[in-house]
Amino acid sequence: MKTKAIFYHAGCTVCVSAEQAFAGSLDPARFDVEVVNFAESPARIGEAEAAGVVSVPAFVIHGTPFHINFGASMAEVKGS
Amino acid sequence: MKTKAIFYHAGCTVCVSAEQAFAGSLDPARFDVEVVNFAESPARIGEAEAAGVVSVPAFVIHGTPFHINFGASMAEVKGS
Repeated sequence: MKTKAIFYHAGCTVCVSAEQAFAGSLDPARFDVEVVNFAESPARIGEAEAAGVVSVPAFVIHGTPFHINFGASMAEVKGS
Repeated sequence: MKTKAIFYHAGCTVCVSAEQAFAGSLDPARFDVEVVNFAESPARIGEAEAAGVVSVPAFVIHGTPFHINFGASMAEVKGS
């Protein structure tokens, strides 16, 4: 069974860079990658925060948040 | 030709978590991953800093640094 990896972002420049480097780079034989753009899916903000995401871009893998560089805080995401 | 992805770390807990999540997860058909532990290879610190690495753990892919969460600053790495 593949591991679910969710990449959360907000369309920022830093987010796009991280998406290009990682979201399409995980081994497709082992990972099922979902890309969530909060600008399009604000309803997903709650699940990301519950998993510990405090800024974007970030992955959540096995329930653990991995923030990649810094694009925007979740406060900024919610205020935008 | 595979893309070179270098994962720099310093053996910290945050580093190990990021290594387990990402260093072995990139598509082996497209990436050649090298793991560098500064505690074992302090001579590699200069190349990492030149690429823009300011904290560990971090990847450098195509010359671009991607810091994953925060384990330790490069100043702490050099001071340890």
